[in-house]
Amino acid sequence: MPTARTRVVREPHRASYDRETVYRILDEGFLCHIGFAVDGQPYVIPTSYGRKDASLYIHGSAASRMLRQMQKKDDQTKEAAPVCITVTLLDGLVLARSVFNHSMNYRSVVILGKATLVDDPQEKLAALRILSEHILPGRWQESRQPNERELKQTSVLRVPIEEFSAKVRTGPPIDDEEDYAFPTWAGVVPLEIKAGTPIDDARLLPGKEVPEYAKHYTRRGWERA
Amino acid sequence: MPTARTRVVREPHRASYDRETVYRILDEGFLCHIGFAVDGQPYVIPTSYGRKDASLYIHGSAASRMLRQMQKKDDQTKEAAPVCITVTLLDGLVLARSVFNHSMNYRSVVILGKATLVDDPQEKLAALRILSEHILPGRWQESRQPNERELKQTSVLRVPIEEFSAKVRTGPPIDDEEDYAFPTWAGVVPLEIKAGTPIDDARLLPGKEVPEYAKHYTRRGWERA
Repeated sequence: MPTARTRVVREPHRASYDRETVYRILDEGFLCHIGFAVDGQPYVIPTSYGRKDASLYIHGSAASRMLRQMQKKDDQTKEAAPVCITVTLLDGLVLARSVFNHSMNYRSVVILGKATLVDDPQEKLAALRILSEHILPGRWQESRQPNERELKQTSVLRVPIEEFSAKVRTGPPIDDEEDYAFPTWAGVVPLEIKAGTPIDDARLLPGKEVPEYAKHYTRRGWERA
Repeated sequence: MPTARTRVVREPHRASYDRETVYRILDEGFLCHIGFAVDGQPYVIPTSYGRKDASLYIHGSAASRMLRQMQKKDDQTKEAAPVCITVTLLDGLVLARSVFNHSMNYRSVVILGKATLVDDPQEKLAALRILSEHILPGRWQESRQPNERELKQTSVLRVPIEEFSAKVRTGPPIDDEEDYAFPTWAGVVPLEIKAGTPIDDARLLPGKEVPEYAKHYTRRGWERA
């Protein structure tokens, strides 16, 4: 159920408060934009994320301004500052007959919450693996694993997926009835993030072929392993 | 020059405070994430934008909660609330030998500022045209133009591009020297937003062919008309 803060006001028919819808969007994307405020000034920073059940994980350098800011406790409430995490998947340009009815097809999720530092070493390592597998399933086990020093340099935060909403637009343009006679093309230009041919690193060891997970990389229709 | 608020702290070698770099990123993208705070709670909402010179324009329904919130004057200062506008272009997954050195190639811009309502009717119409041309050059003149009622239902806001920074990562993975012997593939999986084949609207007038601007839509290497 939406809260007063997550209820979609504009075009409420595009809103969804269904956990399954939200998870599907979160699992297809891997880039989020995190909003946090410092002295009343909001900042919006892009970063990757991973999901397990009702937890969203983000990570970064322990020295990151954003991660430190997100953990900062309020002097009075002793709670972490509220954040907003938004994930947007862009699916197409919607060309109507009228300028006014032009739109985009998209799926987006907005999550409000507070971040917690993951300090248990086992949970931290598991979260890093979730982040890695979320972006590129199969890569973790083929890479050199994190060592103590690297784990120390990395912070992992967990944000619960509790207060959220999704907004989705699909389908053709919707024109005013009298505009259907207007003589112009109308329809949808589908958009999708596509992977190109992988580029070998210049210092690749001999015989190392591009792995399957990098060769046919796609997010569309992506299913959690 | 960066301010204390826009100076990039992490990996400062990736930062740019150069207006031309920022404009190139803004002109290739068309989706931004806007951050604003209400009672201390940040919100991050995706929307399209257009640029002309040092002004960023956004638009939406006059009833939009975000647009109303962005114009709201502070009781004391009589100024609009501060916002943050972030544009992120994702260029690739960077696969290093170590989990720790995995990264992404990206170009992002963060703008801090305050929004002003564009209320002059001529500037408003011009701004709507800028927004439309920014996303799909050529479409404006082939569409039914906005009428009085539609203009009234639409709000346009201007945010000055004054306090900003860009952050850019390009190129191959950078591994620790001792990891170059680790036996795994390494390199970059390039990512790009690609347009698919346009989908005709079901009520298209006979003989209306897909226009060139919709047929070969691309953002990469996009140059302002």
